[in-house]
Amino acid sequence: MKNGILIVFEGIDGSGKSSCMDAAVSEISKKRDVIRTSEPTKGVIGQLIRTHTDVTPETEALLFTADRAEHTKEMKKWLDNGKIVMCDRYYASTLAYQSAYGVRSSWLRKMNEPVIIEPDITFLFDISPEMGLERVESRGEKSKFERLDYLKKVRRNYLKIAKEKGFVIIDASENKDHVLASVMEHISKII
Amino acid sequence: MKNGILIVFEGIDGSGKSSCMDAAVSEISKKRDVIRTSEPTKGVIGQLIRTHTDVTPETEALLFTADRAEHTKEMKKWLDNGKIVMCDRYYASTLAYQSAYGVRSSWLRKMNEPVIIEPDITFLFDISPEMGLERVESRGEKSKFERLDYLKKVRRNYLKIAKEKGFVIIDASENKDHVLASVMEHISKII
Repeated sequence: MKNGILIVFEGIDGSGKSSCMDAAVSEISKKRDVIRTSEPTKGVIGQLIRTHTDVTPETEALLFTADRAEHTKEMKKWLDNGKIVMCDRYYASTLAYQSAYGVRSSWLRKMNEPVIIEPDITFLFDISPEMGLERVESRGEKSKFERLDYLKKVRRNYLKIAKEKGFVIIDASENKDHVLASVMEHISKII
Repeated sequence: MKNGILIVFEGIDGSGKSSCMDAAVSEISKKRDVIRTSEPTKGVIGQLIRTHTDVTPETEALLFTADRAEHTKEMKKWLDNGKIVMCDRYYASTLAYQSAYGVRSSWLRKMNEPVIIEPDITFLFDISPEMGLERVESRGEKSKFERLDYLKKVRRNYLKIAKEKGFVIIDASENKDHVLASVMEHISKII
């Protein structure tokens, strides 16, 4: 019996979703019990995903979904205990990133169906890949997910899923305070 | 361009499939290059499956399929090089074992679709779970897959898949020499 609230943050790297989530967690935790979590998780499957990167996009999708199946089980317990769970990336990440590699979207959706729960609210931090990349590069990071052409596809996929699922789209090019205020306004309506 | 041959051995533990496969490998390798392989593999995902057993049946199915996706990629290379590949367990194991845990069969099939190739021949070593268990117990082994009621469901699933896919059903209660002779007769027709 779920009586907690699940809030998910999605977006490409450099969209500012993680630091905004940190600020929101810090804000909300003044009044309520909040659990901050993320995918891939810090569990053994999540660790394998990070270290074992030379695999096909299909294998990667299967591993992300296996990690998610265990994560969902854990999140359900937290939600049953009335917690507010804030999660950095969830199923939409797999749909957006893996299908941008050419993996069939219907296969990804089918695979995820029995191992996910629908969040109470999902924020999509939307930003142009050019601006996202610029921010990421200034952090000195670069991963295989961060090539421009690829990220343009990821963004398109994200926007399509957001429309279909009713995600809240946040203009992540705005300044941090403005973005946080907008996120908090949406959250305050449901907690 | 596949010009090798893929031969798969399936059956519950105690059916004698692995030792018969060893004997067949030894026989065939007198004349042809044979690669002996098995699932779960000895790769990192296969190792994770063996050590990380406290997961939901859905997670287990996703991990087995991820392991298989990498394995199929490897087997394709061997087949392209004209090898005879003999594999102890393949996709039918996931369909038979995981759906006996109550996981939806259509989900398992869909998930496996893009990451498998159809073997040239699959042998199903059919045996009553009672006799299989007796043999396994005499080996001093016991795994969570080896409970009687559960194995009865696995056997039913295997027989259903075998009928649908045209597997060769071997009466594994017969004596070893007879079983090997029967297997070799089938193999000699295709190599």
